[in-house]
Amino acid sequence: MNVFALLRWSYKEGLRSSAKYSTISSFQGSESRKYVPRRAVLYVPGSDERKLQKIPSLGADCIVLDCEDGVALSRKNEARSKIRHLLQSREIDFSGKDCSVRVNSVESGLCEEDLREVLSASHLPDTLHLPKVESPDHLDWFADKLKSTLRSHKTAEKMRLIIFTESAMSLLKLPAICQRGIELSEETPFVLDGVVFGSDDFCADIGATRTNEAKELLYARQYVVMVAKAFKLQAIDLVYIDYKDLEGLRIQSEEGAGMGFTGKQVIHPGQVEVVQAAFSPKPQKVEWARELVQAFEDHQQQGKGAFTFRGHMIDMPLLLQARNIIQMASVTSK
Amino acid sequence: MNVFALLRWSYKEGLRSSAKYSTISSFQGSESRKYVPRRAVLYVPGSDERKLQKIPSLGADCIVLDCEDGVALSRKNEARSKIRHLLQSREIDFSGKDCSVRVNSVESGLCEEDLREVLSASHLPDTLHLPKVESPDHLDWFADKLKSTLRSHKTAEKMRLIIFTESAMSLLKLPAICQRGIELSEETPFVLDGVVFGSDDFCADIGATRTNEAKELLYARQYVVMVAKAFKLQAIDLVYIDYKDLEGLRIQSEEGAGMGFTGKQVIHPGQVEVVQAAFSPKPQKVEWARELVQAFEDHQQQGKGAFTFRGHMIDMPLLLQARNIIQMASVTSK
Amino acid sequence: MNVFALLRWSYKEGLRSSAKYSTISSFQGSESRKYVPRRAVLYVPGSDERKLQKIPSLGADCIVLDCEDGVALSRKNEARSKIRHLLQSREIDFSGKDCSVRVNSVESGLCEEDLREVLSASHLPDTLHLPKVESPDHLDWFADKLKSTLRSHKTAEKMRLIIFTESAMSLLKLPAICQRGIELSEETPFVLDGVVFGSDDFCADIGATRTNEAKELLYARQYVVMVAKAFKLQAIDLVYIDYKDLEGLRIQSEEGAGMGFTGKQVIHPGQVEVVQAAFSPKPQKVEWARELVQAFEDHQQQGKGAFTFRGHMIDMPLLLQARNIIQMASVTSK
Repeated sequence: MNVFALLRWSYKEGLRSSAKYSTISSFQGSESRKYVPRRAVLYVPGSDERKLQKIPSLGADCIVLDCEDGVALSRKNEARSKIRHLLQSREIDFSGKDCSVRVNSVESGLCEEDLREVLSASHLPDTLHLPKVESPDHLDWFADKLKSTLRSHKTAEKMRLIIFTESAMSLLKLPAICQRGIELSEETPFVLDGVVFGSDDFCADIGATRTNEAKELLYARQYVVMVAKAFKLQAIDLVYIDYKDLEGLRIQSEEGAGMGFTGKQVIHPGQVEVVQAAFSPKPQKVEWARELVQAFEDHQQQGKGAFTFRGHMIDMPLLLQARNIIQMASVTSK
Repeated sequence: MNVFALLRWSYKEGLRSSAKYSTISSFQGSESRKYVPRRAVLYVPGSDERKLQKIPSLGADCIVLDCEDGVALSRKNEARSKIRHLLQSREIDFSGKDCSVRVNSVESGLCEEDLREVLSASHLPDTLHLPKVESPDHLDWFADKLKSTLRSHKTAEKMRLIIFTESAMSLLKLPAICQRGIELSEETPFVLDGVVFGSDDFCADIGATRTNEAKELLYARQYVVMVAKAFKLQAIDLVYIDYKDLEGLRIQSEEGAGMGFTGKQVIHPGQVEVVQAAFSPKPQKVEWARELVQAFEDHQQQGKGAFTFRGHMIDMPLLLQARNIIQMASVTSK
Repeated sequence: MNVFALLRWSYKEGLRSSAKYSTISSFQGSESRKYVPRRAVLYVPGSDERKLQKIPSLGADCIVLDCEDGVALSRKNEARSKIRHLLQSREIDFSGKDCSVRVNSVESGLCEEDLREVLSASHLPDTLHLPKVESPDHLDWFADKLKSTLRSHKTAEKMRLIIFTESAMSLLKLPAICQRGIELSEETPFVLDGVVFGSDDFCADIGATRTNEAKELLYARQYVVMVAKAFKLQAIDLVYIDYKDLEGLRIQSEEGAGMGFTGKQVIHPGQVEVVQAAFSPKPQKVEWARELVQAFEDHQQQGKGAFTFRGHMIDMPLLLQARNIIQMASVTSK
């Protein structure tokens, strides 16, 4: 058995044997899905025409047209119809960006109307963001509504789904929520792609007081990363509130990237550059990844059994990590 | 639908839809239950007459008449009978304080006798503290014994129950323990009201070494807060052992309050003032809460759909948080 | 009931009542099993003759003859046969050390061949190390293969089993994995004895970046300790990569010991001394333990009901902790 066969075998068996969470395999297996970088996740209120017009100049990987917290209750209809128009007309250029929409939560009573109006445009967003997911049931409800909303829609590609965890109970149930999201991805118009840690609602829920250093959130942040990564999902870190303090933002962004987060929410366009730099792969990491993949391909052709690289045995997780880094580097470099 | 209806709907639906933990709703729903502050939780050995007589001068929110660790095995009977006498005679004034009793653990073999003796007084304590809860089964056992003990008792009001989590296995099972406690609150003479983190036994169990900075307990503390708050329970932080170091106590108390703990155990009357200050709502927070509730009531009367306050959309969790702060402020201010 | 009876009762009842995890009792109950210290866990590649010959001079408590990451794919057979020869011939003196073998993971496709070859020696290793345990199923598979491999083997004593947790999903499932390991210990040729935190693979899996301070792993480390200790297992901490930085190693080792880890992986013989010092019981702790056990035995003989020591009520966990410290001290002192 050559190294390629071995690694491939190891990879497949690994997935097959992951018992309870067996549905991951087919999800992960779909190598056709490309990685969508979301280093900076920037919200633009759907009701704010001035801000919507600025989208082409915003450098964030992921632009979120917001129906939720950024929009007053009295202006929900306005937001929906502006977002619908924007999707329909294609007046605004999203090229190279993840064009996404945040609907209101399942419990708000506003979500169904959001879906009906926004998704009646002939062009769908790339990604949907669902806030305040409290239980697997919320995803069942959402999948159901999404299916019936899109019944008459011809969709070429599934939309990605990003879910928010923003309360103590939601964190407690996060493994079950992700598991259900992966299962539903098989049979619904969405594919679960990431988890956002909504720290402000979480702090309000547990009665914590936010600090810039965020020591009070250390467990919650590392736990969210662990659960998200266990299901091969992106993990989006908390907002840095003090948007004028770019040095504090840099420190927190690099810390989050070091913990394993793949991106970070931003509340101001001025935060984008610092954040995206922190979540971009470092040049020496990219070089390492390119050389590793090259070495792997060389060994595969020669049919050699042994495969070490820079003194380390190379296994499938490392190879996958290297490929992600290369893809991330190619997508995020201008 | 006006804002009030919407928020109310959102709140109720939220509870109803929280699937597995559905029993929370009726528990939470009982708005008649008032918030009992327990900023400082002070133990007084039931066998120590001199300390018992000092109770009126102790400023702690919560006075715990102790049958457990503060009482030698040879003096358990003495402690029970002194506590019984104290409850029966009402000689000591507990006004404004949570009058509570800590019995011995389910596994000690002493708990049933504690209940039988202490609760034979015609006046019951406000709150019972149950140490070393290791599994949901312990609560079943305790509920059972409590019911049979109180069979002939005319109780106007349920007692509150505070449980202690003090071992690795107890923390591992804490979500299931809290869930069972909430369920049992429906049908037994207690209402689960809080969780105490017993750090000394926990450290002995996992072989950790206590430091004043308590970095070795960072995960355990933040996890206990998260689980307790997921079930809308109070969370009581660890003891600061070095009772002469008031500055260290202040730092740890403020850190605990910042993490979301609602109070802290104290081992010396000299610790009460520092601790209660740290767990009291800050004046500007109280002002914010009062103005928010006022704004909510104004909007409700005018039937306006939109509701923002100081630039933020106001939702039900924030409104509830504001009400708790006001209640806490009114109860704790002298 | 004298103190001994009470403590014994309390201990037994405690185990019996720990409901779901009831199989722990018989496991824990076997007081015949002695504590095997593994303060420093040192890997020696099975394929490296030069390093194998150095074993007698290596001071580490636990020597791991490695078939896994330390051995290139092309040299797996060589490693297996060298390890087999070493066990068979008893040429190398392991006295006072835990003689153990790390096989390849269940998912590697190499594990069965490792077992067949290595365990065909007439002398078995004391301990087996199983890397990359991702689910309880892995342990079922491993128990099955081990049983059939040893069918014709006359084994006087069970081998100990150390499992590695090295991915996000593995950590998420760690309670279930440990529970299954304890259950399988009843009926298989292994007894689960410890958990190793494999931080490098974990970091690769979650995309974290290792730092010497390891703040990015604070949650994972403390969680692994808590789960391991909930099942009364040893917990082995991460490798300190920079093997020339002995001061950094000392700090991290003492931090790990303070968190409750019982030992630490080392990658270089030069790390052993610092690590073993950090994980050895401090002299004043040993003195405390000896006096406590003496006091306990005195009280037991006198049949006294009360039992306090240095101002603290003594319960069974403290007594057990004291005995472990004494045993550790006697085993680890030269």
